[in-house]
Amino acid sequence: MAPVRLRIDLAYDGTDFYGWAAQPALRTVEGELCAALATVLRLPSVDVTCAGRTDAGVHARGQVVHCDADDPPDQLVRRLNGVLPRDVRVRRVAEAPEGFDARFSALWRRYAYRVADTPEVLDPLQRRLVLAWPRPLDLGAMNDAAATLVGLHDFASFCKQREGATTIRTLHELAWARDAAGLAVATVRADAFCHSMVRSLVGCLLAIGEGRRPPEWAAEVLEAGARDSAVAVVHAHGLTLEEVAYPADGDLAARAQTTMARRDE
Amino acid sequence: MAPVRLRIDLAYDGTDFYGWAAQPALRTVEGELCAALATVLRLPSVDVTCAGRTDAGVHARGQVVHCDADDPPDQLVRRLNGVLPRDVRVRRVAEAPEGFDARFSALWRRYAYRVADTPEVLDPLQRRLVLAWPRPLDLGAMNDAAATLVGLHDFASFCKQREGATTIRTLHELAWARDAAGLAVATVRADAFCHSMVRSLVGCLLAIGEGRRPPEWAAEVLEAGARDSAVAVVHAHGLTLEEVAYPADGDLAARAQTTMARRDE
Repeated sequence: MAPVRLRIDLAYDGTDFYGWAAQPALRTVEGELCAALATVLRLPSVDVTCAGRTDAGVHARGQVVHCDADDPPDQLVRRLNGVLPRDVRVRRVAEAPEGFDARFSALWRRYAYRVADTPEVLDPLQRRLVLAWPRPLDLGAMNDAAATLVGLHDFASFCKQREGATTIRTLHELAWARDAAGLAVATVRADAFCHSMVRSLVGCLLAIGEGRRPPEWAAEVLEAGARDSAVAVVHAHGLTLEEVAYPADGDLAARAQTTMARRDE
Repeated sequence: MAPVRLRIDLAYDGTDFYGWAAQPALRTVEGELCAALATVLRLPSVDVTCAGRTDAGVHARGQVVHCDADDPPDQLVRRLNGVLPRDVRVRRVAEAPEGFDARFSALWRRYAYRVADTPEVLDPLQRRLVLAWPRPLDLGAMNDAAATLVGLHDFASFCKQREGATTIRTLHELAWARDAAGLAVATVRADAFCHSMVRSLVGCLLAIGEGRRPPEWAAEVLEAGARDSAVAVVHAHGLTLEEVAYPADGDLAARAQTTMARRDE
């Protein structure tokens, strides 16, 4: 009997994890999920592929994973949540459409970065996912700067370099707005991200938002094409993977082919 | 020099507190706040009065407190947050208007109770303030029942009795709605609440929402005038004190007089 490909949607509080990727002797989201799947599917081990390999301390509400299983049992959501620790919850499990690959079929990933920049909006209930910033931010200046970064660029200035990997990405959206609670929230959406890219973009824009740098500085950093020590990689805990988008079912396999041909995800 | 009355607005994550009210050898919000005020005001001890004495595990985003101080220093918000633990944050400190009493001047208190009733809306980042409920809720049935409880009633059926204290309250609002994340959220607003009242009202409505009781049951419980063991007092962690409202400055003293004359808050 052919194995079934499962699409698993999950959410986690990244605070107490050493990130997504399984590492020996460290508590990771992948490690916990694979252990839970092995228990529920009664297998010695299970491999999974995820859409966004989040760093230590980064959260997710819209992580997407696939794994292949022979004859999976019913009520997988309930069974997995019964085994998983409370800081990881499975929201949905479904048989994936033909050609689905959680990583390579994805069209884009959307992250949010949340900042409390005045005492009036401090909320201890949200402190695990919101950066407390000691000075008020000018979102107008930050959005002027952000607009110069959107589009297809080499983001080498904002990425930790990996040997032989491209840092060219399409940044679809980078914009700040106040949410209902008064937090400054960045929406950051791209085809894919290189390592530490969102946190470097946010670090650059915070310097502009508090007036330490002019809005033009963002484009200067981008054009320099090399990491600038004045750009801080901000704390992980303000960052949440909110959504991963996929094409219509009929286009999944073609999208995966295109992405893999670029060999740079 | 006459002391200054300070109004302090604060928020806290109630998870690791034994409630608001100071108790010997237990970690309480009042205990932490008074210790921080004593440090910052350089006093051996400080008394405070709060608008809503929350139970163990209950959170607040809109708690209001007053205290009297001679010659308070500048930058009290920054100083207090520098001393307080991270699960309590002061949002504002201001000189209170003439006649202000955090407890007796209040017009009403508004609480929210949050429930995740399907796996799709489970969010580990919000697990400290949201009750996970294993069955889907019919908010229409719950709102039909809730409407029969709104108004001036003796809420003895929903209160832990205290000797000589009235259980008559005006429930201004009790209504359920889905928030943007899909959670079921009750808004509960009254002039004041007796002990465990919000959590008993929610317990009653959850039984109706999952179909275990008909909507008419809520009014039957209310009319019985005595606690019904079928009404569960739901978990504290879903409950948050969101807002306390006060009259216009000129009416503060009169409101406090009226409230104190009832001697039942």
